[in-house]
Amino acid sequence: MSDNSVRRVDHISILVENVDESIKLYVDTMGLEVVKVEDSELHGVRAAFLKAGDVMVELIEPLGPGPLQTLLEKRGPGFHHVAFEVPDLDRALDEVAAAGYRVIDERPKPGIEGGRIAFLHPKSTGGAMVEICDKKEFED
Amino acid sequence: MSDNSVRRVDHISILVENVDESIKLYVDTMGLEVVKVEDSELHGVRAAFLKAGDVMVELIEPLGPGPLQTLLEKRGPGFHHVAFEVPDLDRALDEVAAAGYRVIDERPKPGIEGGRIAFLHPKSTGGAMVEICDKKEFED
Repeated sequence: MSDNSVRRVDHISILVENVDESIKLYVDTMGLEVVKVEDSELHGVRAAFLKAGDVMVELIEPLGPGPLQTLLEKRGPGFHHVAFEVPDLDRALDEVAAAGYRVIDERPKPGIEGGRIAFLHPKSTGGAMVEICDKKEFED
Repeated sequence: MSDNSVRRVDHISILVENVDESIKLYVDTMGLEVVKVEDSELHGVRAAFLKAGDVMVELIEPLGPGPLQTLLEKRGPGFHHVAFEVPDLDRALDEVAAAGYRVIDERPKPGIEGGRIAFLHPKSTGGAMVEICDKKEFED
């Protein structure tokens, strides 16, 4: 990606059964800082945003039936994805496609925390859920 | 943990079937920087250490039978753990135990990249593999 290379890890996302329960370990005991806890109707989740240095740790609890609820039932709780920030997501998606990798999202979609995101296909990452994001405003 | 709170995400670890194959996506296409690639006899893995900002992304491939190989066969490749850096690991382990959480490692053990590490028990983290580490020298 040359000058469009990954800059940093933006966030990691952990699928949990109960956000308020999980916060006790990460915040009360380990001392991560709570940025906010909120229900997102758009994404169908209750989410806690916790800061560890300059990386956001997102605890995600599905609020109803859907892919995350299915994943939780099938594989149990655990890491869901890591998000890498790039300068320009459109260009990154073009570069990923040109290199022969599959994506879940061919074009950017809005992130839960603003910005724009797209997921690569786990078949192409060797199994991990990898998100690429940028900090540009999503335009429909 | 008060003044022993988590400072930052030190690294994330991804279990892969083939380190050299996975590097193509993360390095050649996404532009993460290779710090080193090496076989570790102590840990029984081939590991690539890639930098994304100040977070290390470790790609881990088991070199033979053992818990990682079993995990790879049972659950397939994907995220293995996230490591949070604290100022003092001994104290962090005491605080985690005092709060009623279970650990896999009751005392620090040497990290693959130096420093000292210990894993919490996934039963206590709500399912995720969470490592705590510090940058002190391991003393047997």
